[in-house]
Amino acid sequence: RAGIGFSFAVVFLTLWLLVLVSLPVCISVCRASSPQEDSAMENIVTEKKAEESHRQDSADLLIFILLLTLTILTIWLFKHRRFRFLHETGLAMIYGLIVGVILRYGIHVPRDVSNITLNCQVNASPATLLVNVSGKFYEYTLKGEINANEVNDVQDNEMLRKVTFDPEVFFNILLPPIIFHAGYSLKRRHFFRNMGSILAYAFLGTVISCFIIGLLMYGCVTLMKQVGQLGGDFFFTDCLFFGAIVSATDPVTVLAIFNELQVDVDLYALLFGESVLNDAVAVVLSSSIVAYQPEGDNSHTFEVMALLKSFGIFLGVFSGSFALGVATGIVTALISFFLRDFQLLETALFFLMSWSTFLLAEACGFTGVVAVLFCGITQAHYTYNNLSPESQDRTKQLFELLNFLAENFIFSYMGLTLFTFQNHVFNPMFIVGAFVALFIGRAANIYPLSFLLNLGRRNKIRSNFQHMMMFAGLRGAMTFALSIRDTATYARQMMFSTTLLVVFFTVWICGGGTTQMLSCQRIRYAYISSVKSRLDFVGVDSDQDNSISVGEGSERRSTKQESAWLFRIWYNFDHNYLKPILTHSGPPLTATLPPCCGPLARFLTSPQAFENECQLKDDDSDLILRDGDISLTYGDITVSTDASGAHTSGGLAFAGASTSDDLDRELAYGDHELVMRGTRLYYNFDMHAEDARCFLSLGD
Amino acid sequence: RAGIGFSFAVVFLTLWLLVLVSLPVCISVCRASSPQEDSAMENIVTEKKAEESHRQDSADLLIFILLLTLTILTIWLFKHRRFRFLHETGLAMIYGLIVGVILRYGIHVPRDVSNITLNCQVNASPATLLVNVSGKFYEYTLKGEINANEVNDVQDNEMLRKVTFDPEVFFNILLPPIIFHAGYSLKRRHFFRNMGSILAYAFLGTVISCFIIGLLMYGCVTLMKQVGQLGGDFFFTDCLFFGAIVSATDPVTVLAIFNELQVDVDLYALLFGESVLNDAVAVVLSSSIVAYQPEGDNSHTFEVMALLKSFGIFLGVFSGSFALGVATGIVTALISFFLRDFQLLETALFFLMSWSTFLLAEACGFTGVVAVLFCGITQAHYTYNNLSPESQDRTKQLFELLNFLAENFIFSYMGLTLFTFQNHVFNPMFIVGAFVALFIGRAANIYPLSFLLNLGRRNKIRSNFQHMMMFAGLRGAMTFALSIRDTATYARQMMFSTTLLVVFFTVWICGGGTTQMLSCQRIRYAYISSVKSRLDFVGVDSDQDNSISVGEGSERRSTKQESAWLFRIWYNFDHNYLKPILTHSGPPLTATLPPCCGPLARFLTSPQAFENECQLKDDDSDLILRDGDISLTYGDITVSTDASGAHTSGGLAFAGASTSDDLDRELAYGDHELVMRGTRLYYNFDMHAEDARCFLSLGD
Repeated sequence: RAGIGFSFAVVFLTLWLLVLVSLPVCISVCRASSPQEDSAMENIVTEKKAEESHRQDSADLLIFILLLTLTILTIWLFKHRRFRFLHETGLAMIYGLIVGVILRYGIHVPRDVSNITLNCQVNASPATLLVNVSGKFYEYTLKGEINANEVNDVQDNEMLRKVTFDPEVFFNILLPPIIFHAGYSLKRRHFFRNMGSILAYAFLGTVISCFIIGLLMYGCVTLMKQVGQLGGDFFFTDCLFFGAIVSATDPVTVLAIFNELQVDVDLYALLFGESVLNDAVAVVLSSSIVAYQPEGDNSHTFEVMALLKSFGIFLGVFSGSFALGVATGIVTALISFFLRDFQLLETALFFLMSWSTFLLAEACGFTGVVAVLFCGITQAHYTYNNLSPESQDRTKQLFELLNFLAENFIFSYMGLTLFTFQNHVFNPMFIVGAFVALFIGRAANIYPLSFLLNLGRRNKIRSNFQHMMMFAGLRGAMTFALSIRDTATYARQMMFSTTLLVVFFTVWICGGGTTQMLSCQRIRYAYISSVKSRLDFVGVDSDQDNSISVGEGSERRSTKQESAWLFRIWYNFDHNYLKPILTHSGPPLTATLPPCCGPLARFLTSPQAFENECQLKDDDSDLILRDGDISLTYGDITVSTDASGAHTSGGLAFAGASTSDDLDRELAYGDHELVMRGTRLYYNFDMHAEDARCFLSLGD
Repeated sequence: RAGIGFSFAVVFLTLWLLVLVSLPVCISVCRASSPQEDSAMENIVTEKKAEESHRQDSADLLIFILLLTLTILTIWLFKHRRFRFLHETGLAMIYGLIVGVILRYGIHVPRDVSNITLNCQVNASPATLLVNVSGKFYEYTLKGEINANEVNDVQDNEMLRKVTFDPEVFFNILLPPIIFHAGYSLKRRHFFRNMGSILAYAFLGTVISCFIIGLLMYGCVTLMKQVGQLGGDFFFTDCLFFGAIVSATDPVTVLAIFNELQVDVDLYALLFGESVLNDAVAVVLSSSIVAYQPEGDNSHTFEVMALLKSFGIFLGVFSGSFALGVATGIVTALISFFLRDFQLLETALFFLMSWSTFLLAEACGFTGVVAVLFCGITQAHYTYNNLSPESQDRTKQLFELLNFLAENFIFSYMGLTLFTFQNHVFNPMFIVGAFVALFIGRAANIYPLSFLLNLGRRNKIRSNFQHMMMFAGLRGAMTFALSIRDTATYARQMMFSTTLLVVFFTVWICGGGTTQMLSCQRIRYAYISSVKSRLDFVGVDSDQDNSISVGEGSERRSTKQESAWLFRIWYNFDHNYLKPILTHSGPPLTATLPPCCGPLARFLTSPQAFENECQLKDDDSDLILRDGDISLTYGDITVSTDASGAHTSGGLAFAGASTSDDLDRELAYGDHELVMRGTRLYYNFDMHAEDARCFLSLGD
């Protein structure tokens, strides 16, 4: 049978790749153990050294690339067989662990004699060191401090340290695409609908979680000091820092399953929105905690001024990063407003501007992650509309790929680093304390906030949703990147080791148990069909949601009304002023600005917007007469079809339409729901006026 | 007018970006000059240092990203205005130069006092140094040797050295996508047709050029030594090394113009094929020259054994890299044979396998560039066919983008490095000598080989083609990467500086004068229309060529006959055995293998191939009756249309068809030419039998 043949082939290829993975490892060993040749010519030695080091670098990189390839093949097998208990990130970690074990225990590198310990009379550790070796000057750069009792280890495990990346790689290269992709693919309609709740969870919730965990850990650490389990300093600020870094949730595994299973869109929006924003909050929070430095000798006392300063830093950095991200997004929109018809240039520009936002923010002392997040949201909203349809596809696919690669790389590196990191401090008490604190911290975030939010929400966050959110508090890439960034002190090393375990546990256990948890909590879901999920996977717009909800129509409508006040103000301003200035869509400014601004309005409006004006107005007035649900530009059209065969074709037509739609239109849509009742099917369209026509023709 | 408005906007944005570029520069300065705080707590200092260094890194990267953005904007303006005298790479260099000048002369960084020169009693320069600073151990890594008279410079120009990348970045990260893209987009039909000539130019020609330049430079160096102009050692092997690195031509500028102007396809194929392959030859040649080490004390004498060893290394490395590249290509084809329907996974796999080929080859001691080149060719031939159409587009676009970014990055870095590199050795005599040697070396490559080749070719390489090839001997990314890889010795530093000038001169002068040279040599070209060129630019298959050639039909046909013997053998083997095993296309193996291998053949053939069997056979026999030009599967169909309006639409239909076609079919096609005579238009199709039907229906 073909399926079995496929599986065999994949297993065979996987084995072959495992052999390949072991190859660079062997090469590493051979290189490391090859004796230093005693050639007389010094520059030949230099060249040889350079060559060796180059080969070593290649072999190290190759390990990771082959790990990724392996992961991809296995994911494919899983997708093919519809295994859903292990996500690709969990898989990447397992492969990383295996290679880590091999590197750590499978290989013994003979002691490298070329390390020399110098005893010199210097008082500081400069960044650059010039060493005068018998008349020749050699330059050395500082790599970091090493524990005195690990000096021998350092000499032994040259190779293990070689596969350890500079933590800055994570922050400068791997995180930006992940965060940007998250901002870019934020389900903006549902995001805006649940904005209040999401902001509450992300800001208040993260701060609560951070302080609860910090306090609990401080208790734990004090206890440890009492029983003599603590091997170094661990201050309250360290505890708070730990609280901040583990408060960044990353439910990528859960969301992937949600997407596949078509779980309730509001739950999805709440979880995704919270996780995206709390990454940003956690990053800024942790840097504010690091910045807490009271005056005077003892830097670990409580001091109001320092606390206020930290709080000011938090606000300043967050708002600065936010402003910078939005500003770059708008600049890109303006550039792309003119730059058309050259797809390669458009995509390249989009990519470069996104990355430069990150770097600019970092260089200015703001937080790149926050900037790139809001840049992504802004670009998805404005810039994306100015791109040609082909460029839109290209850009989307590019960031999808980058996100996929970066995410799997980070997770497989996590697995690897559990064994290859040299300064692990595993303290059972601290680890148990951390897990307990994490649980309590998450609970103190979700339940009280949900209770308070439910007082104001008409569409209550039900208790099973709350349990699900509690359960989905996975820790991932951001927590890892924050904790590996600085592992200089004892406290940080212990945090790093504990964080790794937390990530492993949550990704495997919580991620793997998502389907069970959904059933257990009786949250409705449906695995629509392989066609649909495949379309989703290959990049059909995930902003569209065909949630199958039975009899929730009335409840849904109330949600809309509820957050309408916030949404409407923003929507009107955006639609009337920002869209016309920054994109080619929207009504001309001459219609929306007061008459006194006539010439300015005419100058700023795109010629294309003028062309659409008359038609637009007609459409609008048409719909006002028929339905005046929220604002002038809304309307409900209901198309009923009775068929079971029409179901699939309708879904496909739907998907096709949605890829070619601008993202902003989808924001403006109300619901397109697929309510299935017996054999009848309701397309409940609630859409932006100008699109009604084209949609109907597609639906027929 | 809209056009002027666009230009203004772009100029404005460009200025704005220049301001942005200066921002990170300022930040760099501020960081560099910020006084070292005298805090008591040491780990706070460590943290601060890490933060500073992180900001510095971000600012450095930002400079390059903004340079690229600037380049993109200006390219867009050029494309919009159809300026053709300056290619994007030339532009990138100019921007790089400007920023380099600013960094070098515009900014004076106060002396950094934190560098300390240690005088220690060590005899070697180990890779890792452990420094014991008052009880704490710090780890330092070797960065390189510094000239004794430049020790003060090092302390001054901390920042300049910060923007200098590790040369390994070029080899491990930037070159692979460029080379892969070249291999991937090799015009395979014309490549195979002119294969003999291309191989002659690439192998014989490069070796000739290398030795001629090496000998001339040795003369020059000897002369310099006589007049006392030489400040260090410069051996004959150094001269040969110089010859090898400057023998790698990179006519990216010329080819871009050729593509836009629809210049003769054979000339294009000759130039492109030569430049792609001679990069590979030059890389292997240079490493073989470095490996030349006679036994005994004096390593710069002539010795037969060492020479033979070098020759053996050349052959071994080249064939090893070739085999490795082809093997990985075939493995990827096999994997992608099974891995379907998940586009993201397919693209990711394609990307990772291509990169891992490079790294695997480097780790094994082969040459990654050569491996990745042949991997690209193999993947374009087999793997590409197994991808779904969407994945094909994705993959193509991805590599196009990567190539674009990497190329422009390298060229802007080149501009920057002219001013920021610390150890330039500009020697006027050497530079003049190098230019003369380059000219003679190129001439000694092209003219004698063309003469010899013309003895065997029926379709002669005319003298104007020869002049054009002589003129198009630009030096680019590969030459730069090879020369920056090792700048440890005086000789290498002088080579590097000279190489930079060579690249600048050839890219600006030769690249900029291509159009003039074409007119001067009376090589026919035509700028078809903006629609066509735009389609070309946005990623329509460049393998298709609508060359407008007036009355060259008969000559063209003879070319086909000429190289048919080589082509036919390869084609038959590939079509009958390799394609059916590795892809889903081609005839089933049961038809092509002898009957005794029946079960094996049935096992290896894809089910899809069986389905197509009957139809395929009918098509074949149909065409055999009509036309038996070269082999069974060839036929000529001529469709005439007389219209001027039909021209554009025909072109468009053509382009559309070609994107959806498999690449391998295009290899099998003969010519599709657009012969324009007055108002009449000839579509001269000469195609693979099974496609005749679909093409005609599209063409109508």
